[in-house]
Amino acid sequence: MNTTRQGLLIVISGPSGVGKGTVTKEFLSRNTNAELSVSATTRARRPQEIEGVNYFFKTQEEFKRMIDNDEFLEYMQVFGMNFYGTPRAFVEEKLAQGRDIVLEIDVNGAMKVKKAYPEAVTIFIAPPTMSDIKSRLYGRGTENESAIDRRYREAFEEMQYIRKYDYVVVNDIIDRAVKAVCSIAEAEKSKVSRNNDLIQYYDEELKSND
Amino acid sequence: MNTTRQGLLIVISGPSGVGKGTVTKEFLSRNTNAELSVSATTRARRPQEIEGVNYFFKTQEEFKRMIDNDEFLEYMQVFGMNFYGTPRAFVEEKLAQGRDIVLEIDVNGAMKVKKAYPEAVTIFIAPPTMSDIKSRLYGRGTENESAIDRRYREAFEEMQYIRKYDYVVVNDIIDRAVKAVCSIAEAEKSKVSRNNDLIQYYDEELKSND
Repeated sequence: MNTTRQGLLIVISGPSGVGKGTVTKEFLSRNTNAELSVSATTRARRPQEIEGVNYFFKTQEEFKRMIDNDEFLEYMQVFGMNFYGTPRAFVEEKLAQGRDIVLEIDVNGAMKVKKAYPEAVTIFIAPPTMSDIKSRLYGRGTENESAIDRRYREAFEEMQYIRKYDYVVVNDIIDRAVKAVCSIAEAEKSKVSRNNDLIQYYDEELKSND
Repeated sequence: MNTTRQGLLIVISGPSGVGKGTVTKEFLSRNTNAELSVSATTRARRPQEIEGVNYFFKTQEEFKRMIDNDEFLEYMQVFGMNFYGTPRAFVEEKLAQGRDIVLEIDVNGAMKVKKAYPEAVTIFIAPPTMSDIKSRLYGRGTENESAIDRRYREAFEEMQYIRKYDYVVVNDIIDRAVKAVCSIAEAEKSKVSRNNDLIQYYDEELKSND
């Protein structure tokens, strides 16, 4: 039983202001076998950013060629400008090495990934209540009222997708939410459907004892 | 959101000698919301046993009437003598109260429970290797060789059922196996399919904000 076991592809979504970034970061810090996926983007590299660590930086032509070659698990264009996408090859190589890969993406991206890769584990981070979202968005104090209103309307729309996810984790207490995500990752590894190699190993042992 | 949430029905199986009793006991000691189901039986009560705690003691007639009335999630007769069964009413009442109920039963019982109650979470406790089972059975030193051989053959047959379970947990290191079972129970509670009340609550909050 020394075959490398396929890693998990974990998709984390949730509305703006729900704290999914904090949950993801804390999950990664408690799971050394898990890492965040590196996206490709057409936006300009900022001084402190490192190619292949923060992003894979691409020109518009390169990105479009990758789209044509079906090299993305999902991608999106923000406000008709820059592209962002999850490179299929990067994810598949890591999974084959047994690493768990986390994608923190929006509901549309999540649905595309689940379609392309049905074994993906999709987790929706939800607020205790919707008014909680509103106060968190206002509490940030970094945006004007119309930007907050837009985010709040988007949050409403994202919430309609919960039923399409595998799991829903309420982020009421951050430590509890992170533990729930850790449990989901651990439990998924025990699923019979993810343990074909193990079961085949027993089958062979059983046969050789007949 | 003060509705009582339905408890989990957790079915634990595994071959003789795999240590599933120890895993179950340790799981229960770490989860105060979980308890072992109380079986009904026709066998005689032993002096230290308490009705409703260790077993529900029934006469053969009572037990057969319960079978006729479909009052068991599963039952079996051991060597054409005593009956043992899981009373449906007991389990359903506890689940409705939000308690998690653990059934430690054989593969045939587990298949019946999963059919009667598809939301049940079925976990197969598996040995690191089959030869490990053999040494554990011999190591007990409480049975003669033919009884051990019979248990070993039964273990082989039980192993054929792994694919019909939801999860497989290898009991190589007991603490690791218990943690896996704890994670499975926690993760199952985050499944979208088990959180209809929560999602309906969001739906209503979303509607009232339109």
